[in-house]
Amino acid sequence: MNLKELVGIEAAKYVTDGMTVGLGTGSTAYYLVKELGRRVNEEGLKITGVVTSSKTEAQAKELGIPLKAIDDVESVDLTIDGADEISEDFQGIKGGGAALLFEKVVATYSKDCIWIVDESKMVANLGKFPLPVEVVPFGSHNIFRLFEERNYNPTWRTDESGELLMTDGGHYIIDLHLEKITDPRALAKELDECVGVVEHGLFIDMISRVIVGTPEGPQTLIVPTK
Amino acid sequence: MNLKELVGIEAAKYVTDGMTVGLGTGSTAYYLVKELGRRVNEEGLKITGVVTSSKTEAQAKELGIPLKAIDDVESVDLTIDGADEISEDFQGIKGGGAALLFEKVVATYSKDCIWIVDESKMVANLGKFPLPVEVVPFGSHNIFRLFEERNYNPTWRTDESGELLMTDGGHYIIDLHLEKITDPRALAKELDECVGVVEHGLFIDMISRVIVGTPEGPQTLIVPTK
Repeated sequence: MNLKELVGIEAAKYVTDGMTVGLGTGSTAYYLVKELGRRVNEEGLKITGVVTSSKTEAQAKELGIPLKAIDDVESVDLTIDGADEISEDFQGIKGGGAALLFEKVVATYSKDCIWIVDESKMVANLGKFPLPVEVVPFGSHNIFRLFEERNYNPTWRTDESGELLMTDGGHYIIDLHLEKITDPRALAKELDECVGVVEHGLFIDMISRVIVGTPEGPQTLIVPTK
Repeated sequence: MNLKELVGIEAAKYVTDGMTVGLGTGSTAYYLVKELGRRVNEEGLKITGVVTSSKTEAQAKELGIPLKAIDDVESVDLTIDGADEISEDFQGIKGGGAALLFEKVVATYSKDCIWIVDESKMVANLGKFPLPVEVVPFGSHNIFRLFEERNYNPTWRTDESGELLMTDGGHYIIDLHLEKITDPRALAKELDECVGVVEHGLFIDMISRVIVGTPEGPQTLIVPTK
């Protein structure tokens, strides 16, 4: 078993009967969903899944995990998802898989969130990983120029055929190559207030735990409450 | 001629040869676009229009006004648009026509903006007019519940057939019935930071002038620079 699989199985232990569970997107979340599917089928685990992307939806359906749309639940008990970078103070960048908008919506309406990652995602400061910004197509070239003026080194996210990638929500993604984000909270506010920006990949104060895959096995880090 | 038509014609006087002009949406902007079309055809006025909705696009095309997409221009020289409410300090609510997102994008990339309204739109405080909030459909029922909890008296915007109205950008609109907005700037920030909110109808520090239709004729109010 690889590290991602071990982490996915470890995270699934936090899921118990009767829970509404937010199911993340990406290569680590894949193993979480796989393990939850196994427990539903082999152990009779009773959960309701809420998906964060069309990709995860397809996987969960195939595994027979009962699903509800986020709009049809009052709240989610626990969301387990991957992350692209996590800083020492447990803020994160997500969106490498282009599902950041739906992931953020589900996380926002979750009572608790856990991120599952391999060691390489744990960093001192955020920013080496390009920060994804989901934007309305109308006027997106103007936003792109604005990001250029601010020296944010923007690039367009493209799909396999080289076209601008269209998210599940019908928007484009601009990746900001910032190298080091000194004040994630301030940058989040700035981007939130930027007209045409739907969401961005900065996830601030979202989680209670991180489960990190290491050669010695999964390590669980508990986020200090403030 | 009705008051709206007089105001539309008065506003068109600010448009001169060579300008890139943002063309608003709504019953007053209709007359502005009509007058610009007349001047293009009868007087040979040379402008490039940038539209804020599919509705205005259809009107401008029919009149033969040359158009460019907002993404194809570096900036707009002047945008002229209607407004649903304008406060004494010249902040506004827009979005009664469901075009607020595209209107806000065009206004944001405009060097100058003018609003054209009838007297009834000038108010002491914003808020009698329901504040439109454009939201991502995914999770929109959760946002709606959040607005209920905050006592913002939300209602869904519907179309003629009673279905949830879909904007040109592919989003829903929730109208907040607030009666009185004491701090528009603070509310704007709060909504900007709300996950799933694409844009809202508060237009802060956007304009240089308002042209108001009154029984005595159009009156031009100049916004004090800060």
